[in-house]
Amino acid sequence: MATIDGNRLLADLKALRRFGATGTGVVRPTFSEVDMASRRWLVERMTEAGLDAGIDGVGNVIGRSRQPGPALLIGSHSDTQPRGGWLDGAMGVIYGIEVARALPDHAIDVASWADEEGTYWGFLGSGTFCGEDVEGCAPLDAAINSAGLAGVPKARAEDGRYRCYLEAHIEQGGVLEAENKKLGVVTHIVGMNGFDVTFTGQQNHAGTTPMGLRKDAGAAAIRFAHEVQTTMASVAGPHSVWTIGRIAFDPGAPSIIPGRAELYVQVRDIAPETLRRMEDHVRALVAAADRRGPCRAALSGGDDGVRPAAMDEDLQKHIAAAAERHAPGLWRKMPSGAGHDAQVLARRMPAAMLFVPSIQGISHDFAEDTHEADIVLGCQVLATAAESILAG
Amino acid sequence: MATIDGNRLLADLKALRRFGATGTGVVRPTFSEVDMASRRWLVERMTEAGLDAGIDGVGNVIGRSRQPGPALLIGSHSDTQPRGGWLDGAMGVIYGIEVARALPDHAIDVASWADEEGTYWGFLGSGTFCGEDVEGCAPLDAAINSAGLAGVPKARAEDGRYRCYLEAHIEQGGVLEAENKKLGVVTHIVGMNGFDVTFTGQQNHAGTTPMGLRKDAGAAAIRFAHEVQTTMASVAGPHSVWTIGRIAFDPGAPSIIPGRAELYVQVRDIAPETLRRMEDHVRALVAAADRRGPCRAALSGGDDGVRPAAMDEDLQKHIAAAAERHAPGLWRKMPSGAGHDAQVLARRMPAAMLFVPSIQGISHDFAEDTHEADIVLGCQVLATAAESILAG
Repeated sequence: MATIDGNRLLADLKALRRFGATGTGVVRPTFSEVDMASRRWLVERMTEAGLDAGIDGVGNVIGRSRQPGPALLIGSHSDTQPRGGWLDGAMGVIYGIEVARALPDHAIDVASWADEEGTYWGFLGSGTFCGEDVEGCAPLDAAINSAGLAGVPKARAEDGRYRCYLEAHIEQGGVLEAENKKLGVVTHIVGMNGFDVTFTGQQNHAGTTPMGLRKDAGAAAIRFAHEVQTTMASVAGPHSVWTIGRIAFDPGAPSIIPGRAELYVQVRDIAPETLRRMEDHVRALVAAADRRGPCRAALSGGDDGVRPAAMDEDLQKHIAAAAERHAPGLWRKMPSGAGHDAQVLARRMPAAMLFVPSIQGISHDFAEDTHEADIVLGCQVLATAAESILAG
Repeated sequence: MATIDGNRLLADLKALRRFGATGTGVVRPTFSEVDMASRRWLVERMTEAGLDAGIDGVGNVIGRSRQPGPALLIGSHSDTQPRGGWLDGAMGVIYGIEVARALPDHAIDVASWADEEGTYWGFLGSGTFCGEDVEGCAPLDAAINSAGLAGVPKARAEDGRYRCYLEAHIEQGGVLEAENKKLGVVTHIVGMNGFDVTFTGQQNHAGTTPMGLRKDAGAAAIRFAHEVQTTMASVAGPHSVWTIGRIAFDPGAPSIIPGRAELYVQVRDIAPETLRRMEDHVRALVAAADRRGPCRAALSGGDDGVRPAAMDEDLQKHIAAAAERHAPGLWRKMPSGAGHDAQVLARRMPAAMLFVPSIQGISHDFAEDTHEADIVLGCQVLATAAESILAG
């Protein structure tokens, strides 16, 4: 059985953390200088691991094994949220490198997918690898240019090269910790969609404009948001989530009736038909708000939603067996409420995911962390699963 | 009868407009360099008009008549909103200077009250003049220092000096224009109060945190705001207004459950008891939101609300008679939905106000304007009223 080197794994994770380290967290948005430096460092680590490694035209770092395939592809992302944690994505990339080092005679490719967090375009790297090109996003084109990647070829998933895709990630929730489990075998990755909803009324003086004559865009936004909060459950499933994470009134002053208001509604579910009902419900509520007036209501976005993805059942069995071997009784099956590159890869090849516990369920925050023993255990389980998959 | 000089009035108004002119609007916040320059210019105009003029320790420009009293005090403010119109306040100040010029043998003092718009402290100048000192506001102290006013004495209303206070202002609403009236005789000035309401929950990942485990401060804020919008009418009067002009979620990202949310609720009415009911209702809704959880709800502010003020009935008669004389049938009595320095002065002396029409009811906006003929008519009515008051 392949044995990973826990000290080497942790040393590389901590070395990667230094790129953009800010307090206990990491600030490493895609295509920033520190992000590009970290990608060059990843190329060096992959090359040392015996892979043919490079950075492609959208920033993906891909290390290709020289062993005969079909290969196992292991990856995640090394970019961060604007104020992110040190493990979100990064851990899965270093796991890939460590598993490739632990199984040098096996065909294992490793990837760090660009811009999973959507600094410019969410899932840019995994999407491009799977054949989905982003067009017409000027800020992205400018960032690619200034990162020196203009004209560099984009890597694509070659037909027939891959057996499957594996991704390990921190849970980003508190389920494993609450149940004292050490590992999660992911069954589904949630699909999600989001909508910008804009209300347009008439800005006016909050003292001299009678209630009956107002076109208060803020009041219209509040009524709509309350409808979302109170009626979504009627179309949602038991595991659905919906969030209004952002709202703003313009001009946003105490004595001025807002002439414009904007908010963002996000919906997530693991069942495609449930997600579709939630999306339709948002659209229907916006249309109803627009019809009743006196403010106009308009919806934009929602075209680039991510569909739910089921993880491959055979791969789940390999991961579950490895988990049971290294941590008997300390693992569970669970859905992923967060989006991951694995759901993009799942459109091209069998894919599966492994979770390790997040301390206090915290992520997307400088305080994000996982116990070192759990980090090492997760990588060993991934290596054992990889070995059994490639032997299968 | 005293006759004002309309051309001189308009020329001075346009000269004052140049201090901070930005497009058709004016950006002249209190204690800015351009505001202080405009105050020095006002001192020159008042001095030319035969008044003993100066800038006091909070920025008030006050010109004192050398005629025997008791004096009539005429004023308004010359500071603007962050992006304000050219007439809001400024017109009433220049009216005062023009009326003093038209009635050189009468005891007429003129004032431009500092910071009516609350760049640092709303009604700072008129409040200080009436004996209410602001303490412990460090940004204000710093601004007074950098404006060169540290150590300059504050002007105070001397007992026995004043017969009464008059203020002219643009209406800032659309009532006069809609009824084709040229003048408004103000009966009451609205009282108002405002509250910052803060909701504190637990910031978390919008994908991995089930609905039942959330402490969504944004959702709590939306529910509260909806309650304000839908239940305030039950305690309000027919002319009450209430406004949520500002709301913000923290951190305000699509995929993050807000851990904190803030909004501002403002209530206004001309009846003290109605205003009190509305204030109590806001407090009760905040307390109820806090009790039901899961987020904490807390209210701050509300201690510096402005009480409604009735305008002096005798002064209203003088103004109404002057309006009827110069514009028969083209005036009406009306409340002021906006706050004005006159409601502060009304605590110290009889006070009254005159409105002229706002084109399309627009104010607090670069587009704010009033027809020149209406501006000239308003000043003549004020002069005639001043003459009859001082003769009475």
